[in-house]
This record gives sequence, C-alpha cells and structure tokens, in this order.
Amino acid sequence: MSPPAVLISEVGPRDGLQSVPRTMPTAHKLAWIDALHAAGLREIEVGSFVPAKLLPQMADVAEVVAHAARLPGLTVMALVPNRRGAEAALTAGAHKLTIPVSASEAHSLANVRKTREQMVGEVRDIVAAVRATAPAVKVECGVSTAFGCTIQGAVPEADVVGLAVELAEAGVDEVGLSDTTGMANPAQVRRLFRAVRAEIGERTGAAHLHNTRGLGLANSLAAWEEGVRTFDASQGGLGGCPYAPGASGNVVTEDLVFMFEAMGIATGVDLDRLIAARTHLQAGLPGEPLYGMTPEAGVPRGFVPATRVVDGARP
Amino acid sequence: MSPPAVLISEVGPRDGLQSVPRTMPTAHKLAWIDALHAAGLREIEVGSFVPAKLLPQMADVAEVVAHAARLPGLTVMALVPNRRGAEAALTAGAHKLTIPVSASEAHSLANVRKTREQMVGEVRDIVAAVRATAPAVKVECGVSTAFGCTIQGAVPEADVVGLAVELAEAGVDEVGLSDTTGMANPAQVRRLFRAVRAEIGERTGAAHLHNTRGLGLANSLAAWEEGVRTFDASQGGLGGCPYAPGASGNVVTEDLVFMFEAMGIATGVDLDRLIAARTHLQAGLPGEPLYGMTPEAGVPRGFVPATRVVDGARP
Repeated sequence: MSPPAVLISEVGPRDGLQSVPRTMPTAHKLAWIDALHAAGLREIEVGSFVPAKLLPQMADVAEVVAHAARLPGLTVMALVPNRRGAEAALTAGAHKLTIPVSASEAHSLANVRKTREQMVGEVRDIVAAVRATAPAVKVECGVSTAFGCTIQGAVPEADVVGLAVELAEAGVDEVGLSDTTGMANPAQVRRLFRAVRAEIGERTGAAHLHNTRGLGLANSLAAWEEGVRTFDASQGGLGGCPYAPGASGNVVTEDLVFMFEAMGIATGVDLDRLIAARTHLQAGLPGEPLYGMTPEAGVPRGFVPATRVVDGARP
Repeated sequence: MSPPAVLISEVGPRDGLQSVPRTMPTAHKLAWIDALHAAGLREIEVGSFVPAKLLPQMADVAEVVAHAARLPGLTVMALVPNRRGAEAALTAGAHKLTIPVSASEAHSLANVRKTREQMVGEVRDIVAAVRATAPAVKVECGVSTAFGCTIQGAVPEADVVGLAVELAEAGVDEVGLSDTTGMANPAQVRRLFRAVRAEIGERTGAAHLHNTRGLGLANSLAAWEEGVRTFDASQGGLGGCPYAPGASGNVVTEDLVFMFEAMGIATGVDLDRLIAARTHLQAGLPGEPLYGMTPEAGVPRGFVPATRVVDGARP
C-alpha cells in the first residue's frame, strides 16, 4: 500500500462547529473526532483557542485537544489568534497551530480589529513562543480573503503574495491560501498558488477552499495541478459562512475524498467510513443541515478507490 | 469584444423537460427559449423527435423548433433516435441533430432496445438522409455512458474510443462524450477526451457532464484543459436523472457560465440575464426544484465577467 498522495485536513470540528450557533456537547465532539480518525483522516483541526465568552462552542477546546492527541498517527491542529491562545494550545498538547491572517486590510480590521501588520507581529510572537517551548510543534498561517473580500471586493494578488512572504519570513512552517468568501476561480487558484510557491517554495501550504458558488472541487483540482498536496475540507460542508440555503461554505470532505480517490490519488481515507462518521455529527447537532453530493448519490457501481483498505489497515 | 471562447449548449428544454413527468405548456417553452437566447446562448437543444405516446412532454417539438429557428444567431438542436425522427426534425427546420449512442451494450439494449452496432447503422441512415436533403444541417453523436454505466459498471475506454471512431467513420460532424450516470472524474475526462481526439481530431465534440456526485464543474475544467470548447449544461440543473434530493443531474448552466466567466473565458452569455431566465422555467413548471449555487449566492462583489455587454449587444 502506497502512502497517501494528498493530506485531507478536516476542519469541521473547528470551522464547522464555530459557525453553528448551538454548541455540540463534548462527548459528541470526541466521538465524532474518533470516527473521523477511524476513517483515516490524519490531520484534524479540532478547535479554536479563543475566549469562551466570544465562542462558547469552543469552551471545551483543551479537553478536545487532549483527547485527540491520544489518537495514533493524528496531527491535532488548533486555531490560535494570538500568543495567549498559542500558549494554551501548547499546554493542551496541540501538534500544530494555525493562525488566520487576512490579506484584506478591511477584513482584518472588521474580523480581528488588527491591521495586517499587527497580525504579522502576533505571528512573530507566536513563532517565538513555540520555538522556545515546543520545538516539535508546527505553525501554519492561512491567508484569508486571498481570492477576494466581501468588504473590499478584489484583493490585489501582490498583497497576497507579499503577505505570504512576510509570514514565511516571520518563521512559520506553512502558509496556505483561503477562499474565505467563496470568490475563487480555478485560473486564479493556479495563478496565486504558483506566485506564492515562486516566492516561498516548500513553505506553500494548504488550499482552504469554499463551495459557495459550486466551484469548490474545480478549485481543488486546479490547486492539485499546481502542486498543492494539503486540502482543508469540512464534513457535510459544515461552516464556512454559507450564504443561502443549499449553498454550503466549506468544501465537503466526502466529495473531495471521492474526487481524489476516483482520480487514483490516494487520500488514505476510507470513503464508506467517512460517510458513516456523519452519524456522529448528526447526533451531536440534531437537525443541522449537512451537504454533500456523494453521500446522497452513493459511490458509483464498480467504484475502485485509490486507497485500499486491507484487514482494516490503512497506509 | 472578442468572440466567445467556449460554446455553452443549453439542453434544458430537451434533457431537462423530458425528465420531468409534467409537460411544460408550449407558450412557456417558447418564452423560456426566448429568454435563454436573450441571455446570449447560441445553441439550444429544444426538443426530442420521439413518438408523443412515449414522451408526451415533447409532443409540440415541431412547433418549438420552428419558433426557435426564427431567433437570430441561434443553432437549434434536436435529439433524434432514428431516421424517421431525423426526417421530422429536418422538416421542422432544426439546424443540428444529436443522436445518443451508448458505449455500454447493456445500457444500449435497456434504453433503446438496440445493440451499439444497430445504433451505428441508424446513424449511417440519418447521415445519408441529412446529406441528401439538408446538407447545411450538422449531425452530432453523444456517446452516452462514456464514463461508466449503472448497469454494467465500468465501461472499457477502448469501447468508447472505438465507438467514437465508428461514428466518425459513419460521417457525423461531431462526437461528444456524455457522463450519463455521473460517474466521471477529472483524470478520466482528460484521458478519454485525449484518446478520442487522437483518433478523430477536430470531430471531437461536446462534453456532456453531470453533477451527480458534485464533480460537474471539476470535470468541465478538466475537459476545457484537454481542448474541449463545447459544453452541454441545463438551466437549474434540470434533468439528467437526479438520484436523490439535492443531487442534481446535469451540470447547472448558471454555475458553469460563472466558472468560465470568472476564469476570463468568455461564454457570450450575460449571467444576470441567464439567472433571470429561471423565472420562465419556474413559471412553466411551478414548484419544480431548481439547483445552482451561483443563483443562490449571487455573483461576488466586484465580479468582472469575461463577456462584456455593451448597450445590450453581445459578441
């Protein structure tokens, strides 16, 4: 069995759950994460270290991280907005930190009340803290609004590339690009990942793409063709600021895994078990609408996935 | 203004309407086709010449063809299953005939009760009739189940390529590939279009792709990258054998146009007017579910389409 050719980074327990007004009970979160891990996912963003009064859905994040860190082979990722959050995440045992930094000044001010430059300063502080106390922990930045902003409209590509360079110089391990607003198109995805890779090389990180206008998988394909090998996705398309009924936000993990597996690109994920994990999401958030075409249609007759499961073992 | 870089071939009035049990009244069909034409679509499959007792939704096809043929610049396409249908289509004034021929023997027998070889014979008869009586009329074949079959499962690629060669030798102008069952993936789309083009060159025709498992736009992107320049699509994703609620069949025209326009690839279609044309579809089939992410989310802030409309004029 060959190793996975792409890494699917499941963001549902963080990005999805913080977008839902209700709070999923901790026991359900843990069971859901266990099921995602059992399906073969090897990186999960399990929560966000922000004050519980701002995001009560994430009040149990330390407990969730500690639980997830015991699952074999799993990289446990947590979102941190600042050094204080980073220190809490390290204490809890997170393996990887992710920090969102907006390429749009307007979005940055509206979202975190800090300029881009102030956020780059936060990133430097976080990197210093991590290197000093937990050198094995990786730090990722996600450049949000990289493909457009609902406040300022178009975001100049030079701003995105320039920010990626600043973040790489700040010492982070990976810089990904996020289509926060569902405005990306495949030509732009290729152009921007190529431009970023030309500047920061192997520090070019994940594609975090949305399906707001139905282009999530097409954009993922474009990113793959441009050399991206880590893809964020959310089970059931949960989260990611859906605009309208039926318009999911995040790329649906199940559909993304189906696409790659059908193409012969191993994800390491067992699609049947992944679809089965939806029951835990539904149990923890009864009635919450879940998206996904592959779960609805089922896998095709005669489907041969790239990831072969032998006696329950996966690559 | 540059000419469109891709041709979007709208199949809703045929593929869509024949999949719905109700019959859209003729006046609504005509108004819908007028609105699609006004949005800039330059090829529309307006109906199917099959016995009215089999498909009562298409009983008015001759009247619909005659009306559409008066719209300036529009290529009026009709589906014909045999020579008798072709003769009726020519009498009505169709500009282009399309004949579905299945690459799966099992599907062919189940669908039209003829073998593939018998269907190739029908195609020869139709080509002879067209060349003798209406030499300006084009003949297209769509190879259905080209990417897999719900009855026989996988369809060998050699069968698809071999059938495409036979159809080209039978004298048709274009041979397209259809993902009748929503089983295609982008790697397969590229491989198969490349293999067909290597054999029949410029006679390689349209990509007819479905969105059953959410891959419709990713597959369209793959086909574009492989040189395909004609894409079938259906307004609101109507038709195309949806499997389940929310699982549209045909690629949604609005989403496909948005993708290309956002990429800078002109379709000649005005997206706002295209979305407005949905009101005619809804008026003619009240309550029928329509799909499409772009119509739900709206075009992004600051969106600049590749097709510029100046004083109501289009390329």
